[in-house]
Amino acid sequence: MTNLGIGLIGYAFMGAAHSQAWRSAPRFFELPLHPDLNVLCGRDAEAVTAAADRLGWKETETDWRKLLQRDDVDLVDVCTPGDSHAEIAIAALEAGKHVLCEKPLANTVAEAEAMTAAADAAAAKGIRSMVGFTYRRVPAIGLARKLVADGRIGTIRHVRAQYLQDWIADPEAPLSWRLDKEKAGSGALGDIGAHIVDLTQFITGERITEVSGQLETFVKERPKAAAHSGLSGTASAERGPVTVDDAAVFISRFSGGAVGVFEATRFATGRKNAIRIEINGSASSLSFDFEDMNLLHYYDANEDPETAGFRRILATEPVHPYVGAWWPPGHLLGYEHGFTHQVVDLIAAIAEGKDPAPSFADGLQVQRVLAAVEDSSATRQWQEIPG
Amino acid sequence: MTNLGIGLIGYAFMGAAHSQAWRSAPRFFELPLHPDLNVLCGRDAEAVTAAADRLGWKETETDWRKLLQRDDVDLVDVCTPGDSHAEIAIAALEAGKHVLCEKPLANTVAEAEAMTAAADAAAAKGIRSMVGFTYRRVPAIGLARKLVADGRIGTIRHVRAQYLQDWIADPEAPLSWRLDKEKAGSGALGDIGAHIVDLTQFITGERITEVSGQLETFVKERPKAAAHSGLSGTASAERGPVTVDDAAVFISRFSGGAVGVFEATRFATGRKNAIRIEINGSASSLSFDFEDMNLLHYYDANEDPETAGFRRILATEPVHPYVGAWWPPGHLLGYEHGFTHQVVDLIAAIAEGKDPAPSFADGLQVQRVLAAVEDSSATRQWQEIPG
Amino acid sequence: MTNLGIGLIGYAFMGAAHSQAWRSAPRFFELPLHPDLNVLCGRDAEAVTAAADRLGWKETETDWRKLLQRDDVDLVDVCTPGDSHAEIAIAALEAGKHVLCEKPLANTVAEAEAMTAAADAAAAKGIRSMVGFTYRRVPAIGLARKLVADGRIGTIRHVRAQYLQDWIADPEAPLSWRLDKEKAGSGALGDIGAHIVDLTQFITGERITEVSGQLETFVKERPKAAAHSGLSGTASAERGPVTVDDAAVFISRFSGGAVGVFEATRFATGRKNAIRIEINGSASSLSFDFEDMNLLHYYDANEDPETAGFRRILATEPVHPYVGAWWPPGHLLGYEHGFTHQVVDLIAAIAEGKDPAPSFADGLQVQRVLAAVEDSSATRQWQEIPG
Amino acid sequence: MTNLGIGLIGYAFMGAAHSQAWRSAPRFFELPLHPDLNVLCGRDAEAVTAAADRLGWKETETDWRKLLQRDDVDLVDVCTPGDSHAEIAIAALEAGKHVLCEKPLANTVAEAEAMTAAADAAAAKGIRSMVGFTYRRVPAIGLARKLVADGRIGTIRHVRAQYLQDWIADPEAPLSWRLDKEKAGSGALGDIGAHIVDLTQFITGERITEVSGQLETFVKERPKAAAHSGLSGTASAERGPVTVDDAAVFISRFSGGAVGVFEATRFATGRKNAIRIEINGSASSLSFDFEDMNLLHYYDANEDPETAGFRRILATEPVHPYVGAWWPPGHLLGYEHGFTHQVVDLIAAIAEGKDPAPSFADGLQVQRVLAAVEDSSATRQWQEIPG
Repeated sequence: MTNLGIGLIGYAFMGAAHSQAWRSAPRFFELPLHPDLNVLCGRDAEAVTAAADRLGWKETETDWRKLLQRDDVDLVDVCTPGDSHAEIAIAALEAGKHVLCEKPLANTVAEAEAMTAAADAAAAKGIRSMVGFTYRRVPAIGLARKLVADGRIGTIRHVRAQYLQDWIADPEAPLSWRLDKEKAGSGALGDIGAHIVDLTQFITGERITEVSGQLETFVKERPKAAAHSGLSGTASAERGPVTVDDAAVFISRFSGGAVGVFEATRFATGRKNAIRIEINGSASSLSFDFEDMNLLHYYDANEDPETAGFRRILATEPVHPYVGAWWPPGHLLGYEHGFTHQVVDLIAAIAEGKDPAPSFADGLQVQRVLAAVEDSSATRQWQEIPG
Repeated sequence: MTNLGIGLIGYAFMGAAHSQAWRSAPRFFELPLHPDLNVLCGRDAEAVTAAADRLGWKETETDWRKLLQRDDVDLVDVCTPGDSHAEIAIAALEAGKHVLCEKPLANTVAEAEAMTAAADAAAAKGIRSMVGFTYRRVPAIGLARKLVADGRIGTIRHVRAQYLQDWIADPEAPLSWRLDKEKAGSGALGDIGAHIVDLTQFITGERITEVSGQLETFVKERPKAAAHSGLSGTASAERGPVTVDDAAVFISRFSGGAVGVFEATRFATGRKNAIRIEINGSASSLSFDFEDMNLLHYYDANEDPETAGFRRILATEPVHPYVGAWWPPGHLLGYEHGFTHQVVDLIAAIAEGKDPAPSFADGLQVQRVLAAVEDSSATRQWQEIPG
Repeated sequence: MTNLGIGLIGYAFMGAAHSQAWRSAPRFFELPLHPDLNVLCGRDAEAVTAAADRLGWKETETDWRKLLQRDDVDLVDVCTPGDSHAEIAIAALEAGKHVLCEKPLANTVAEAEAMTAAADAAAAKGIRSMVGFTYRRVPAIGLARKLVADGRIGTIRHVRAQYLQDWIADPEAPLSWRLDKEKAGSGALGDIGAHIVDLTQFITGERITEVSGQLETFVKERPKAAAHSGLSGTASAERGPVTVDDAAVFISRFSGGAVGVFEATRFATGRKNAIRIEINGSASSLSFDFEDMNLLHYYDANEDPETAGFRRILATEPVHPYVGAWWPPGHLLGYEHGFTHQVVDLIAAIAEGKDPAPSFADGLQVQRVLAAVEDSSATRQWQEIPG
Repeated sequence: MTNLGIGLIGYAFMGAAHSQAWRSAPRFFELPLHPDLNVLCGRDAEAVTAAADRLGWKETETDWRKLLQRDDVDLVDVCTPGDSHAEIAIAALEAGKHVLCEKPLANTVAEAEAMTAAADAAAAKGIRSMVGFTYRRVPAIGLARKLVADGRIGTIRHVRAQYLQDWIADPEAPLSWRLDKEKAGSGALGDIGAHIVDLTQFITGERITEVSGQLETFVKERPKAAAHSGLSGTASAERGPVTVDDAAVFISRFSGGAVGVFEATRFATGRKNAIRIEINGSASSLSFDFEDMNLLHYYDANEDPETAGFRRILATEPVHPYVGAWWPPGHLLGYEHGFTHQVVDLIAAIAEGKDPAPSFADGLQVQRVLAAVEDSSATRQWQEIPG
């Protein structure tokens, strides 16, 4: 079997999740290429060395440009904040490296357009690229997509999607790079709203065509974090402005005529990571909540009314997407498994010489929806999303 | 339409529920006989007069024997504590009155046998009798019974039933007549265990044939109630013994080969009135909880594993038992509706000249199961229930 | 005790629910005035006579104007379609009758304004009026309101409300008066959207100040009903246009700064009567679903993270609103109990000489929100709701 | 850091789970010893080599006795069927190897006693042993244990535990070694009943002191499997006897006075891996279901009745056992994480020179409970479990 040399940039939350995926994929799945965890890249030499040791990477780099020059790196996995995605990903593609880029694809539509152009150019040379909308790889979500594609849902009427967190509901929660527009591009909208835009388009197979939305920053100023410390930094005495949205809500239209309602917030007290998606179609309905991520609820309107009801499908059967590689029925998968499935699919696409999904173009389209929501909030007008 | 004169004995919790049933039945159901709330009977003249006014009864009696002599009473509804059931019900049947008797049928098997003999004798003269296992009339339970009877469940393997309450989990909750063996006959076993014995036999269409059980009185002594005050009396300084069981558990066999597990307790902290019944059959499974009484959960093993799952059936469709008489789908029924359905069925049986179910014989069989559990707990042996 | 003579106009779905309320209220609650079910009014003499017999009314009228002249009618209960509310209610108030008017208050803002003016004029003479937003009287909703009023929720950030039904999701479901703009005024928006507008304003104690919304009629033409038959008419061969909305979605602002997301639809396949409301505040969150109407879910952010979690409050304790009058804990109430609680509150207000809530002014404000949603959908602009 | 050389015997379901644990533990946890996946052992040379490659082991052995002689093996992890546990584990301990032994500890009490004696002898020389009751390491279960140990539950009154599967509910499901008494020792009782015996004793901190139980083999004969193929073999034409129980139910007493009800079955149609445990105490209650393994439900009886209710604790907070090493709140863990936590705890104990729990003595006690259930079923008598 041929090996696939991986170079990963970033080793915080996402870096840890991606490392576990690269390590675990060959242990459970039959892969056409064997991923080698060759190089971990980060700016702080000491920290990146410690991380490489902990996460299982052979070597390290402190300059991502050097990473791109290495022969033992066939694929660059970009897990940095969004403001550096475009520069790194474009350079990597130009250097002939396959690229897996964390979402959101970029902080601006212009960047995402440039990245998509670079991905298209690279694809012509057999270089593959993918954006990391990992929740697509949750088995229950894959099943939802399959039921729609199989025609089980009929004409879709309603799409209802929420991504609810509460980690800054406390006004004294400190600032982090995720609350800084320079780094993060946007707040709840780009960080978590991006996921439900992608997921609903993925499941329905339709595009969002227009939106009317509203962004809100409930808490305008917060204590600065005493030191960089991820999601849970300690507060210092100094305060600084929050420059991104705390919450985003929008109504929308889908290309097939469905009406959509979206909500992304970090202020939903008590909801930790609730990605809730409901689809109502003429023939049946689906309901999903990531806080019960192994379940899909399915209502079939064609059933006898005597016994019709939402079915609680425990998506842990061998027939469900990805599940056969893991444990017997009823043995749950967790958050990190989506990342493993993501690299499994990416490796398969590379080996088969096919473009993986979601592509950078898919990421760009999500970006355009997010931009339209921002524009709509600013102009108080409906905004169309260019095809 | 002919009228049916009702005489009700007792006006506490059960009396209020039965009154609402007699009043409401003709407002929602097409009945062959119109129930007239003619006489309410209780020992305290002042209290029974006030109750009759509040509950909607035309006249009162303070002596139940007089009630039996009245021509405007065609049916006697017995809502007294269990120690008086046998005497009253037998006298009423002998006086040619139809009888609805609250459960448990009696405090002893001997009493229940005498009552059943009286009921059989009366039936020969067209006098009907019924024991008030009202939970049979919850639509979701009726649906469960229908699914079993329709063969949808296959061979029944497991029956799992719990009746969980917590109203005396606090050791300082005061004594009431329900904790006094003289009045109540038994504790959790007879009061609430009787319901799950009846319900599981009703749903499965099978009989419990043998049991191994255990009774427990966790709190042996309690404050006496300052005054008679139903379930929530105030405690006095004086203390007295608890002479009934606080909890009863037993394992059992059903006539069709299923294995049963039962639990009835007033010490399940946090469970207020949780009647939970699960049936696992070779073809499908059912699950019910009275704390969500409008729901029946149903799993069909013949479904494609891709979409198999427990269905949450909201038993509020017109096709569900009793529901067509009430509200549109999704508009829930409550506790008291079971009592209304009970009198609807009883009136229909009387009009049609048929014996209603559950009969006194059914009540006797439940009593025998309860007695076998008590014997088993005392002897630490399995006990068979005579056919 | 003084009596309160009731005259009810309409005897379909709402008429049956109101009748049960007037009948049951004095059986469970201590009332300062005793409601007498004196007159039922409907245009078809034969039908109204049969209905009066079934529902328990003493006499009938076929002309509502005659009803207003009767001395034995102190209160007029208006259960007709929305197009006649204004005329009847105003005339009744002018005739010195208290009025209970079903929601939505009227089919237009202008009508609702006239009704409110009439109500104000009548109030000056001690005549009371109330609009029938009965879901306010569900105990779990009353508890939600109380928790907000007690300051337990903190600053409200998010309001999320859906009213989901599916009774016309089938494109071949026949036309009814509810799909006819002339009769019904609007579709899902006015029929069920009105409830979630009222409920969220009631629970939060805040007003919706602006909206951006979208109405949709998915199925533009349907078979005409073979005969008037409520929600479930049989289809005829002839077809006619649907002139109201099938679904309405809107985003909004509340007076206290919260962001709201609303959805009302009759196309949510599998959802029968799902009124789902979530409130996220700085201190805690609430969640409610009418398909489990006895439950309120409550998350308190001040709790130790080790044991913090949404509490499933079974709102059947004596301390919960209205519950003390009914059954012991864990014995569920149903849909119709809200109507009973409504007349209990109305009778109390009349006896105390106070204006009951929700007032016609409250109904007018809801009407203005609905009109703003319609305007917003037509103009594709945000619309402010006048104070 | 010192290394800890691991030798694993067996590479089927359990072998794969243990391999993932040994690989992942050092990636997420700070460990005092670094586990090296040195040797995988299995009888079939070709198969074990392929498995070692897939699961990440450096070398292989085909004879477990040779494994015990290797210097690069400090710890032997026994994942074979139960009939070989005693021989291998005792030999390993005598060879000075630490031992992790899958549950149930042995197929007979006598074997388990010998193993416990060997473990005690080894412990005196600093050799550690642990039995693999991995569900103890689920964070929600760890939290349940902590709440009991902190005194939050009060006096325990009721223990209710079910382990429900359905993988042989179909009478035509083929035979496997798990249905063969020679290999497996017992059926549902030993395979899954063992888990709920251990878990309830672990959570409560109490011992089961006596039992009355019943074993049942619903399907006495099945098709033989066409080839060894784990849980899902293909059926051949030949049939053979089922020599173990399909289901086991028993009632019991705990050392602190609680009443227990247990049920283990492979015939609970629709339940895939439902480990359901409920504890009712005088001060609060707990409820857990492995099909929602990240949740613990907790009811605190000391709360104001207005807002008391079962709390849905999502056990993914940093304060919950093991969780801090993984992902942010709301990002679920799965089945395999329990195995990782198990080796983390075992490595810590070895490094600290302490005996880990659950010990072989704990495993023996579970075995005695299982034996008492078998005896009880055979003798139809209550059986005491020797202290």
